[in-house]
This record gives sequence, C-alpha cells and structure tokens, in this order.
Amino acid sequence: MTEAPSARTKVNRYRWLAKYDVDTVYGILDAMPLCHVAYVHEGKPVVTPTLQWRDGDRIYWHGAAGGRMMNTTQGHEVCLCVSILDGLVMARSAFNFNVNHRSVMVFGIAHPVTDPDEKYRQLKRFVDGFVPGQWDRLRPPTPNELGVTALHSMSLTEASAKVRAGPPEDNDDDYNFAVWAGTLPIQLQIGAPIPDPRNLPDVEMPAEVQDFKIG
Amino acid sequence: MTEAPSARTKVNRYRWLAKYDVDTVYGILDAMPLCHVAYVHEGKPVVTPTLQWRDGDRIYWHGAAGGRMMNTTQGHEVCLCVSILDGLVMARSAFNFNVNHRSVMVFGIAHPVTDPDEKYRQLKRFVDGFVPGQWDRLRPPTPNELGVTALHSMSLTEASAKVRAGPPEDNDDDYNFAVWAGTLPIQLQIGAPIPDPRNLPDVEMPAEVQDFKIG
Repeated sequence: MTEAPSARTKVNRYRWLAKYDVDTVYGILDAMPLCHVAYVHEGKPVVTPTLQWRDGDRIYWHGAAGGRMMNTTQGHEVCLCVSILDGLVMARSAFNFNVNHRSVMVFGIAHPVTDPDEKYRQLKRFVDGFVPGQWDRLRPPTPNELGVTALHSMSLTEASAKVRAGPPEDNDDDYNFAVWAGTLPIQLQIGAPIPDPRNLPDVEMPAEVQDFKIG
Repeated sequence: MTEAPSARTKVNRYRWLAKYDVDTVYGILDAMPLCHVAYVHEGKPVVTPTLQWRDGDRIYWHGAAGGRMMNTTQGHEVCLCVSILDGLVMARSAFNFNVNHRSVMVFGIAHPVTDPDEKYRQLKRFVDGFVPGQWDRLRPPTPNELGVTALHSMSLTEASAKVRAGPPEDNDDDYNFAVWAGTLPIQLQIGAPIPDPRNLPDVEMPAEVQDFKIG
C-alpha cells in the first residue's frame, strides 16, 4: 500500500505496482464511486471523502456550493484518490505482509461545471451510474437544488494506478519457514434492498436496483 | 457525503452528521485500516492511501523510509481520513440521493516513531491487529527491514467523525411522489482463505484467521 521508495533505499519491491494504461485506470474509477479529494486550505492539507464519476477522459465530483471543499478547490490543484481493498496478504514475514488493492491517483485543476445543461446532464449521469434510469423516475430537481449543488471536473491526463493482486511474495529463503501463508479475499457485498417504510403502497422497486454493484 | 454547507447557502442538511465522541471516532478507526493521508508537497496537495492503526489516543501509519509520503509528512501537518461506505440511499429526489457512511478526519502533525523498541512494538500491534498472535508466528524482522520501514504517529485530539445511517430523508412534499425509495446495504465481506500454493505441507492455518473482519 506504500509508495515506491526512492532510489536511495535500494529497495524496489513496489515498482511493479504502477500502471498507467487507460483500461486499468478507468476500470478502477468506474468500480468505486467513493473517492478522497485532497487540497490545500490556508496552507494546510485537507482531504474530503466524496463521490466521483467519470465521463470519457474527465472525472467529476459534486458538493455543497459554498462548502469549504468546493469553494477552496475551484480553479486550484487537487489530488483525487480512489482505493479498493481486495484482500489481506499474509506473507511469511511482517515485511512482506501486504494488502491486495487497486488504487488510482489523479492530479489536476478542479474546473467548475457551470453551464446549466452540462451540469444537469452530469448529475443525471451520476445518479444513473448507480441505478440506470433512476434520474427520470425521481422528482425532478428544482432550480434552487441545482443552485446549491456545485460540480467540479478534472482531466484524467495525470492519472496513474497501482494494483497488487495474487498470493504473497516472500523472500526466497522464507519459503522454507514453517508458517501458514495465504490471502484473505475482501469484497464489497450488496445486501437485500431495504424499502423505505414510508413508500406509497403501490410503488414497485425498479428491476435495475437488483443489479447494483460496486467494488 | 459532502460537507456541511456554509451559512450562506441557507441549507443545513448535513449539520447533524458531525460527531466528536471518542467511542464513535475510535470505533470507525478500529473498523477500517485503509486510510488516506493528505499532505502538501512543494505547495501542491497529495493524498496517499495507506494502512493505519490506533493505540489509545494516537493513530499510526507506516511507509517506505525515503518514500515521498513519509519523508514529506515527517514533522508536518497532515490530514488523515478513514471512510466506510455502508449503503446507497435511494431517496425520492436526486437532491436527497445519498450514501450511508462512517468517516473520520484527523488533523495534526506527523511525528516519526524512531525509538527501536516502540517501533517494534507498534509494528507488532499493526500485524496482530489483523490476525491476533500472527507477529510471533512470522519470520522475525531483520534490522535492515526495520530500517527501511518508517513509522509516523499523530495525536487524535483533532479528530471528528461523520455518520449517516438509516432510511432516506426526503422533503415532506416528496413522500407523496410515487417512486420506490429505500437503501441498498453495502458491507465488506471476507472470502474463504486462499492458502499460498507454496505453503510447506505440514503448516496449519492459525484459527484466528477465520475471525478476520473489517468494515
């Protein structure tokens, strides 16, 4: 989970993790809406969890207009990270103890999406990304609701991925050490939908809800 | 998932999310080792995923000595965030569309842990936090391995939590809108352990592996 060490340390074990191909980067972003946006506020680092989605080669996130995160990041550098935990890797030494994971890091400038049509289109994309067709089933947004929702987008030009998968990788000598090694898979599981007790008696759950999946 | 909007927006819907009691904060940190550490590097924000653990009122994380994250943060301000996604909240409007979640944000100075005994003790705590007793079963760490592993700690004095749970909260008028509303629970699931194909024939999986749980 740690970064590639600098050349000074003479340890290169994480170098192989870095991936830059578009399929890997987009695949991770599309699998996990939860992201962490880091920014500098009055000289200090802040990281805020929020939800992201992708449209082609741009990433989008939203927040409260007037809130610190959206206000501070607008037009400024951010670093956005998406991480998925896939397993615990139990090696034969603490040093090779690890986690299987997929993560993406994006650097860039947060651009506000202000065009009303584009903002509407992207918010629809956000909701439909969870449950296809859901936007059109909902009570339509009011001008005030759209006004207090801010939207930022960022180019995916400076994006990179790290992926660690598979069994433990131990030092050659350690394979003779008598300890159990292996991996414990970790997966996000979606439970049975819980209808709101205040649902009207005649509403039906859209079939697409059953297909909801992340991770 | 977004922050509490400022007073200017006249919208206060997220104010109720903030929690500051120790049990809530510690409970979230103990449930999820994955964290995101934000810091300022050459004036720009960076966020790095890593693994954290807690000892009393301090939080710890490790990384490669000489790596950018550990080098840059040492003695400097960081913001560390732990987030757990608990469900998708399908409300009757896009505006009230939300996620159930638990998150903790900690601000503070990253202090390097340099005392060898304390470093050893904390790394043991880290490994045993996943699988109790595992540290003593592993091939012991070498001085070189301990040397290339850096450890930081931070006070939990400036920590706060946000928790959103339960059914959708719609505008009063919207409860008459004929659309299905409800929540889709999301949970981290641990799969059956996968033994390393290179395990020695006589090694047995520790019973504690079966109890591994996060989220």
